[in-house]
Amino acid sequence: MAQDEAQQTAGTEHSTKGAYVSGEEFTRDTQYVEDRVVADVGAVSSAPVEESSTVGDPRMAGLTEGARAWPVEPDRYRLVAARACPWAHRSIIVRRLLGLEEVISLATPGPTHDVRSWTFDLGPGGRDPVLGTERLQEHYFKRFPDYPRGITVPALVDVPSGEVVTNDYPQLTFDLSTQWAAYHREGAPDLVPDDLVDEMLPVVKRIFTEVNNGVYRAGFAGSQRAYERAYERLFTALDWLEERLADRRYLMGDHLTEADVRLFTTLARFDPVYHGHFKCNRNKLTEMPNLWGYARDLFQTPGFGDTVDFDQIKRHYYVVHEDINPTQIVPAGPDLENWLTPSGRERLGGSPFGRGTAPGPVSAEERPPGANPLYR
Amino acid sequence: MAQDEAQQTAGTEHSTKGAYVSGEEFTRDTQYVEDRVVADVGAVSSAPVEESSTVGDPRMAGLTEGARAWPVEPDRYRLVAARACPWAHRSIIVRRLLGLEEVISLATPGPTHDVRSWTFDLGPGGRDPVLGTERLQEHYFKRFPDYPRGITVPALVDVPSGEVVTNDYPQLTFDLSTQWAAYHREGAPDLVPDDLVDEMLPVVKRIFTEVNNGVYRAGFAGSQRAYERAYERLFTALDWLEERLADRRYLMGDHLTEADVRLFTTLARFDPVYHGHFKCNRNKLTEMPNLWGYARDLFQTPGFGDTVDFDQIKRHYYVVHEDINPTQIVPAGPDLENWLTPSGRERLGGSPFGRGTAPGPVSAEERPPGANPLYR
Repeated sequence: MAQDEAQQTAGTEHSTKGAYVSGEEFTRDTQYVEDRVVADVGAVSSAPVEESSTVGDPRMAGLTEGARAWPVEPDRYRLVAARACPWAHRSIIVRRLLGLEEVISLATPGPTHDVRSWTFDLGPGGRDPVLGTERLQEHYFKRFPDYPRGITVPALVDVPSGEVVTNDYPQLTFDLSTQWAAYHREGAPDLVPDDLVDEMLPVVKRIFTEVNNGVYRAGFAGSQRAYERAYERLFTALDWLEERLADRRYLMGDHLTEADVRLFTTLARFDPVYHGHFKCNRNKLTEMPNLWGYARDLFQTPGFGDTVDFDQIKRHYYVVHEDINPTQIVPAGPDLENWLTPSGRERLGGSPFGRGTAPGPVSAEERPPGANPLYR
Repeated sequence: MAQDEAQQTAGTEHSTKGAYVSGEEFTRDTQYVEDRVVADVGAVSSAPVEESSTVGDPRMAGLTEGARAWPVEPDRYRLVAARACPWAHRSIIVRRLLGLEEVISLATPGPTHDVRSWTFDLGPGGRDPVLGTERLQEHYFKRFPDYPRGITVPALVDVPSGEVVTNDYPQLTFDLSTQWAAYHREGAPDLVPDDLVDEMLPVVKRIFTEVNNGVYRAGFAGSQRAYERAYERLFTALDWLEERLADRRYLMGDHLTEADVRLFTTLARFDPVYHGHFKCNRNKLTEMPNLWGYARDLFQTPGFGDTVDFDQIKRHYYVVHEDINPTQIVPAGPDLENWLTPSGRERLGGSPFGRGTAPGPVSAEERPPGANPLYR
């Protein structure tokens, strides 16, 4: 998401909707454009849902108030997802694991942006080649001319109308699994297995509040005390994960699930960004043996590491957050070679794709342009 | 020294003496009050020296132009040395290794300061109990009413007159070894052995320019390019040291020397400060096995680790350098317990004190008040 940088950097901003709280603790805006792209528009449209979950729900049957259902349709939607952003990165990974590249195209805004948020500055002429626009903002305004909230990624854009369909990232990736099943590649893994959802949702919730968002709570704390509380919360959760992963190959057991995708995007950014920039420095990821083995295991699994752009990740945080890095100098470290060392996690058994198979290589045009030891 | 914080933080400041260069690269002011406290005032006073070395010289026979010689005399001088400052920390360690605590008293300014530099804010009533002053500046002004340069630590103050005698830290520690020999404790080590000086001076010079000062060059770089060059220089030197320490217990061989003191004060600050705050993040110290073993070996040797105050070290950098850490939030990490793990360096043979002995424990009143795993 962009909003944490463009609007919430000090954790003291307000919005007219009151979703930000003022004070010392950073609080993430969790109100989104909650439209959905679904397999059965009629059924979903007629099922009102009181409130969406901050982590989404693969069993969500309907829509929240005011939201609209859009039909699953190949070649209609464009996923706008900056490689730098951990929330957008989830959708890039899930799209690839499920083999949806052929039916949902990908636009990748550059890593840095101004107060008007993400731009297509990496595209030819500074425009997205499919949408034809310079800024993601234009698609939010097409949908809501006075859109008052953060211009965030990921955003799914309806190409014919240019309107943003949804930026509700927690629901978006679940919907890629559940609603787009007819278009999954052969051998696509089941990232939300029915028999694991009840156990998985509390896990992804704790990962969201304590880890994915926990690093931001530390980095954007408005006081020493708020920072120290955030630091304690974060490392308490990382200790829990370290223990959980001692005898489980993946978070939910023997196979990859959505929970692993959600943890991975934070872990990939931990040593390059959060450790220094957000002061999450009790230890590096490399100093937690199970988490580090797990992170490397995922990195070396097709669909994960091959989507990572460490240059864009570092540039984004260190350049955009001028209030915590006024020099905007981007660290040259850490050394990334260690991502390729053997994780040894095979000893725990399991298989990443269950009865499925790994996705093929990333297409040439979607290969991350920046630093990644897989592409040397 | 204070000047890097108070006056040189962006690496672009000037002084009337031209010792700072403007531009992108941080350049340390190396002009000091070059008086010396010596065993033979007459001999030293009559030996003019053209130029002092940026790393000092234990064989220095005389004085630079305008400098004065003061007599070695117990209970006359007070060493003003902030525990936070790596340059001052050297003198605290050498004083203790040589057992000069009984003849040169110690004043420890607090870790943070304003543009008027170091204060005695930790003392009763905010004053140094012996000097009676609030600020180190007062002693510089006693000596030079218009003193135009940085108010730096370490500074040796003549207690009767209140005048600063010297702030020439590279020469100061050598002089503690060579000029104060009559007052060394029984069993004091020889930190500047005659037969090693020729080999040692280039080593301490490279450590000074590339490591001690190298971390500041990275942290205070005025551009991405200057930072990246500084980062390369620093890690090239650390790789050299990593190799040098593969088969040497200490930098100059089997026993401690002044060179080890000079490297230690930077290593102790590396993971707590330089890695994140100064973006020296190719790797942590803990990720360089020989250097990390060496650093722990020293930390666990009386005279080294027992002088460290990790709280003051972190507070100093993160609070004083508002231009690179505007929030002034001090990281809670890293975990420090690992400083006490066995270094395994004994396998290389050698003995820290040669034919001498270790100093006794730190006196209660000189024990560092802040975080240090030795004092739990």
